[in-house]
Amino acid sequence: MLNAMLPNPKLHLSGERFAVVYRLTAGSEAEAKARAEEVALEQTVEFPGSLVPPGDIAQQIVGRIEALEPAGAGAWLATLSYAVETAGGDFTQFLNVLFGNSSIKPGIRVERFTLPASMLAQYRGPRFGRAGLRAILNVAGRPLLCTALKPMGLSARELADLAYRFALGGIDIIKDDHGLADQPFSPFAERVERCAEAVARANRETGRKAIYMPNVTAPAGLVTERALQAKAAGAGGLLFCPGIAGLDAMRTLADDDRIGLPIMSHPAFQGPFVTSRENGISHYALFGQLARLAGADATIYPNFGGRFSFSPEECRSIVAGCEVVMGNLAPIFPTPGGGMSLERIPELREFYGREVIFLMGGGLFQGGSDLASNCRRFLEMIR
Amino acid sequence: MLNAMLPNPKLHLSGERFAVVYRLTAGSEAEAKARAEEVALEQTVEFPGSLVPPGDIAQQIVGRIEALEPAGAGAWLATLSYAVETAGGDFTQFLNVLFGNSSIKPGIRVERFTLPASMLAQYRGPRFGRAGLRAILNVAGRPLLCTALKPMGLSARELADLAYRFALGGIDIIKDDHGLADQPFSPFAERVERCAEAVARANRETGRKAIYMPNVTAPAGLVTERALQAKAAGAGGLLFCPGIAGLDAMRTLADDDRIGLPIMSHPAFQGPFVTSRENGISHYALFGQLARLAGADATIYPNFGGRFSFSPEECRSIVAGCEVVMGNLAPIFPTPGGGMSLERIPELREFYGREVIFLMGGGLFQGGSDLASNCRRFLEMIR
Repeated sequence: MLNAMLPNPKLHLSGERFAVVYRLTAGSEAEAKARAEEVALEQTVEFPGSLVPPGDIAQQIVGRIEALEPAGAGAWLATLSYAVETAGGDFTQFLNVLFGNSSIKPGIRVERFTLPASMLAQYRGPRFGRAGLRAILNVAGRPLLCTALKPMGLSARELADLAYRFALGGIDIIKDDHGLADQPFSPFAERVERCAEAVARANRETGRKAIYMPNVTAPAGLVTERALQAKAAGAGGLLFCPGIAGLDAMRTLADDDRIGLPIMSHPAFQGPFVTSRENGISHYALFGQLARLAGADATIYPNFGGRFSFSPEECRSIVAGCEVVMGNLAPIFPTPGGGMSLERIPELREFYGREVIFLMGGGLFQGGSDLASNCRRFLEMIR
Repeated sequence: MLNAMLPNPKLHLSGERFAVVYRLTAGSEAEAKARAEEVALEQTVEFPGSLVPPGDIAQQIVGRIEALEPAGAGAWLATLSYAVETAGGDFTQFLNVLFGNSSIKPGIRVERFTLPASMLAQYRGPRFGRAGLRAILNVAGRPLLCTALKPMGLSARELADLAYRFALGGIDIIKDDHGLADQPFSPFAERVERCAEAVARANRETGRKAIYMPNVTAPAGLVTERALQAKAAGAGGLLFCPGIAGLDAMRTLADDDRIGLPIMSHPAFQGPFVTSRENGISHYALFGQLARLAGADATIYPNFGGRFSFSPEECRSIVAGCEVVMGNLAPIFPTPGGGMSLERIPELREFYGREVIFLMGGGLFQGGSDLASNCRRFLEMIR
């Protein structure tokens, strides 16, 4: 009956496969196996198993269960593999096979993935990575310091004045708050001109190489334009929110040789992916592996103990995702932020070691009335 | 002390504001109020309240709590308003103010939003909407029928043959499965040529006006190119996954006069936003309001009772979001799919009424061995 309706083609695939580990909520091994089979179909042919043509499509296109193991009460880890051809050459289609429809089913979480060399070779990944960013900033042997220009509502001139004082105080990376876009009180073009100039002026005085990273999260047709504008104005890097504008838009920015600036990924709008242990994508895969595949050189996330709710273990897993071997993809900087204060630096220095960027916003305003000297204190503490 | 560090500028804002209703998890009214205040800061100045300059920034930029009411056990509905200027002219920045950082905090969900006329006027929204799509298809007075070309692994020629049979059987919209991208077994360019031709050929035989909608979810730099290619090949619409490639990329497609084709939004990768009642974005706002603002003419979602987990109430709320008055934005088609069968049509006909697109994939293969006559039965049942 089936053959009358559906062809059963002979495919000529490479045999290379990529692997994804899903955490499945299930009450028994049998249930976990059924769920894994469901994912294998859902992420590829999107057909009930009984309708799948029995030849190469069933054997090579449908996801294959490579392993299934218990992972604590009511949970299983299923490793599925997919033919590299299911993703074609598109990062967007890789994301689709990774988690597209299964994202809509409760009790399925992407824990991590492994790509074969042929797929990794399709990705440039971070253009700078840890070593490249350190070279730009001329800082070795200590964590990097980052702060954000805010609050929203200040003029470009006022933000530039803050940028100047931050750079004078020794902050390495002065980024836009992710809420600064192209608003009337601080238009993008004017802001990047003034802030880049202010940081360059401070650098001439200090002899340092601080950089300014404006936020180029923007409508699809304007991302590249704003990035080029930023570069022309002297910005030293770019801030981008892939949760809002797309992971592939970040990859496109990172790959563009006309731009060639380091990129910080910001987690805005990505929260629902990591809110539940049972659904979404792990911190490791989202803020580590995927940010890196999409070309970020640093990945911002809310630190443990601040006003967000990430645990120390989750933060540690992000660090791991930033540096796990992924072909030639450079390791990148974990960039904890959110409610950080000067008092916590010793603890965080201990926790993160050297290969980290500390992002402190409001905390720099809480030490005393001189912003530049608060920054200097921050720098002293991390040295 | 503050004044020494932060300016306190006089702003000249329009006074117009947009409103967002958040569902907050909280144990008491006091806690709910504190959480609402936290959202008001987080979504705008991203500063502790004590650091916010006391003038116009505190009074106009910081979100304003307009209402707070209990919403069942442990939950409150907080209505916050924001100055339209916080979003500037960018849809991406609107999304950021709507939910950017607060998405990362557990217990905050976007329920719905209301934009003033000045903001709605920035959006074209759906180019066709319900009436426009009906005019293209020349179908009045009944639900529209849609199916998907699959499984992944078939060649362009084999998919085109399926498309021909679907169109012959009376399906109105024949779309790519969202897993068809640009893979070696069915390259995008060849597929759109063959499938558009097959549907046109069937139309010549039936006298109907069925359309083919290829999937143009693609890397950022290729979306427009593929859409133009599809149009040139004779495609009658486009399928797009905003969860993968960005809501604004969909808006850009919809707004492009060189393209001018109806768009179906597909929910792949958006699942984590709606998995929990306590976090994310409501079905109403995500699949209804936001899809519409981003230019979709139809919004696909998993129907209740299928292999996904949406409830009838959630499906009803999507319908409401598809047609709630939003300035001049046309109402769009709810498009339930996922595990639908012919047997359920009478029930769903009753539930949804006429203004709906029924998306049936595998179900069309389960009636009998002649695909076109299964389609005819589908058409008979919904008439």
